[in-house]
Amino acid sequence: MKLIKTPTKGMNDYLPSEVALREYVKNVIISSYASDGFCMIETPAVEHIENLTGKNGGENEKLIFKIMKRGEKLANASTEDELCDSGLRYDLTVPLSRYYANNSAKLPSPFLAMQIGNVWRADRPQKGRYRQFTQCDIDILGDSTQTAEITLISSTAGVLRKLGFDNFTIRINDRRMLKLCAEACGFAPEEHDKVFIILDKMDKIGLDGVKNELLSEGYDENNVNKYIDLYKNCDTVAVEDFAAPLGEAGNKIAGDLATIMRCASAATVGGCKLAFDPTLVRGMSYYTGTIFEIRMDGYGYSVGGGGRYDEMLGKFMGQKVPACGFSLGFERIVSALSDSGFVPPSANKSVAFLASKNMNEEDMLKMYADAAALRADGARVLVTAKMKNVYFQKTKLTEEGYTEFVEY
Amino acid sequence: MKLIKTPTKGMNDYLPSEVALREYVKNVIISSYASDGFCMIETPAVEHIENLTGKNGGENEKLIFKIMKRGEKLANASTEDELCDSGLRYDLTVPLSRYYANNSAKLPSPFLAMQIGNVWRADRPQKGRYRQFTQCDIDILGDSTQTAEITLISSTAGVLRKLGFDNFTIRINDRRMLKLCAEACGFAPEEHDKVFIILDKMDKIGLDGVKNELLSEGYDENNVNKYIDLYKNCDTVAVEDFAAPLGEAGNKIAGDLATIMRCASAATVGGCKLAFDPTLVRGMSYYTGTIFEIRMDGYGYSVGGGGRYDEMLGKFMGQKVPACGFSLGFERIVSALSDSGFVPPSANKSVAFLASKNMNEEDMLKMYADAAALRADGARVLVTAKMKNVYFQKTKLTEEGYTEFVEY
Repeated sequence: MKLIKTPTKGMNDYLPSEVALREYVKNVIISSYASDGFCMIETPAVEHIENLTGKNGGENEKLIFKIMKRGEKLANASTEDELCDSGLRYDLTVPLSRYYANNSAKLPSPFLAMQIGNVWRADRPQKGRYRQFTQCDIDILGDSTQTAEITLISSTAGVLRKLGFDNFTIRINDRRMLKLCAEACGFAPEEHDKVFIILDKMDKIGLDGVKNELLSEGYDENNVNKYIDLYKNCDTVAVEDFAAPLGEAGNKIAGDLATIMRCASAATVGGCKLAFDPTLVRGMSYYTGTIFEIRMDGYGYSVGGGGRYDEMLGKFMGQKVPACGFSLGFERIVSALSDSGFVPPSANKSVAFLASKNMNEEDMLKMYADAAALRADGARVLVTAKMKNVYFQKTKLTEEGYTEFVEY
Repeated sequence: MKLIKTPTKGMNDYLPSEVALREYVKNVIISSYASDGFCMIETPAVEHIENLTGKNGGENEKLIFKIMKRGEKLANASTEDELCDSGLRYDLTVPLSRYYANNSAKLPSPFLAMQIGNVWRADRPQKGRYRQFTQCDIDILGDSTQTAEITLISSTAGVLRKLGFDNFTIRINDRRMLKLCAEACGFAPEEHDKVFIILDKMDKIGLDGVKNELLSEGYDENNVNKYIDLYKNCDTVAVEDFAAPLGEAGNKIAGDLATIMRCASAATVGGCKLAFDPTLVRGMSYYTGTIFEIRMDGYGYSVGGGGRYDEMLGKFMGQKVPACGFSLGFERIVSALSDSGFVPPSANKSVAFLASKNMNEEDMLKMYADAAALRADGARVLVTAKMKNVYFQKTKLTEEGYTEFVEY
């Protein structure tokens, strides 16, 4: 029987040069976050279906790869849910929350967690978007102070700088500020999420577009006009000026955001551009305070983002634990580096020994001893069978970085 | 609703110190194999169910985590198989074969592949054995010569030496030699696999045990006596002596094994102990030639093994491609290092800045600039919120390797 050659739908085989770039990026990320005090943790790819469908995953809960119970017979089940007890994780935040609830007694507090791992979403496959992809998250658990936000932002900026990027801005806002604005203009709390989804389109459809869409949704014209007025200079406004009409609560949030921005910039080796963006929304409804997002010049999408989510861990722990996280867009960073023609640094010296089939053992022993000596000196040394078309073989090996050939 | 804290059955959360050791071992393995010319590849965790149940997985095919089709309704399905289209990989050999069939035009020949990744088996959970675990395989595809075996063995021995092990022996045999022995004693080909399973118990039940079990299975007494006679000095026998009664075919295999052993030892920096073991069987029926296994003194189980499997790739490619692989027992190596008290090397200097809630922004800016300067000098610097019980906090951070504290 002939088997199936292609990967499963929407998933990807990575070629050696692709893996080399991915591993390089991973290693830079891991060592950079580690030098800022983050501890790497690991959770299983498989999670309880109850945790995956607990309303912390937003739209991702519709995209779960569900795993069948073992030994369960179809005859005993009347619904799909009865056949399934677990699924592949669709993000690293739900597993982190479960992990912390399970292990907090053994962890320092505050806990600075780093995760880099695969997640799975049964999304419609698109160019450059796969159903298995790598996420890279840092989270600080048990810290309600701005120290958490400052460390998350400056550490992530530090990673990007070490990868050679300097063309990025970290935009920052606060979910509580979004709410104050909506309240001040007369929108009812149950209207907020829908209003924010429209506000989030500002950079695509502009101020007039947001206004028209709010009106066409039937919101009160007076409220909409007040709301639009708040955001009229939002591209360039200083956070304190923006918050001035929002009273004491707004001023407090603005002051905190300004401190976070100044300190995060000071904490980043080489500095880091931050900008207050009052229209930044971030999709996930679990955010409770500061939110942030990385924009790279020339790319129309974010390459990472996060924020404070002080309520989620309570669902696992039964007690409230403050939490704040930053997810770096690993796949987009790899794409951006690949687009730029970046090639990860390789071994100083690469030698290929091409062994003929007819070598006698004496020659073989000498060849292997020579290879071992070169390796002990730090070279990359390939010993491989010499092919009939040795010219073609050497051409391919040259592409892989081999610069010296010894033929036997 | 309160969610479930513990990992799914048989799976594991890794604590920071455990991840640090695992990452250290991974990095040593990756850099060592890379310096021997192996290229890292990556395949998805999810494989077509047809490939997983294609008779290349042996007993593992009973342990598949099956993934449900998306959007499929139970009402339309009458059997479990109709509900499932894929599963989690249970090894890295089946995915490698599919990968090579899918990508061989873009890969060098021979291709030296390295994989390190998770696999999943719905096994009965036991102490130290999890349903998700890491495998680490190297394979050489497209090389029918001994160069493949020599490189696989010496590279794996090199990894173990770099991890500090010198108490291991690589045992080697050949499936064809096993067959010659069984044939020479009159066993019919269809009896071979069962006879080999009994022979494989030699190191547990001894020569008499093997003899009694063969007799009690009803094999011809004359055949059994001849067979036992062949293996009577198998602990110490030289491969050429063992093969002497097996005719020309046996002598050829013995000569090849002797060459592999001498060359693999010469190719390993620091040398490597190899031993011919005529009772070595290796479970998987797909092996076609040389087989090998690592034994570590003081451990009753193998910490890795592999062999030649020249027939498997044909099932994907439609044409025969010689292949040989070595799987290093990642989890057992991590356990052995952990048992020995080994701790991976950490940063030279680790400083923790403990930030009080009441710091003014001027002090914060100075603190963050100081932290950035220390990081630029190569130190690990944690900036974190100072807790009420700062004594306890510092004790925990000392356990994590911090040696200097600055309190604000």
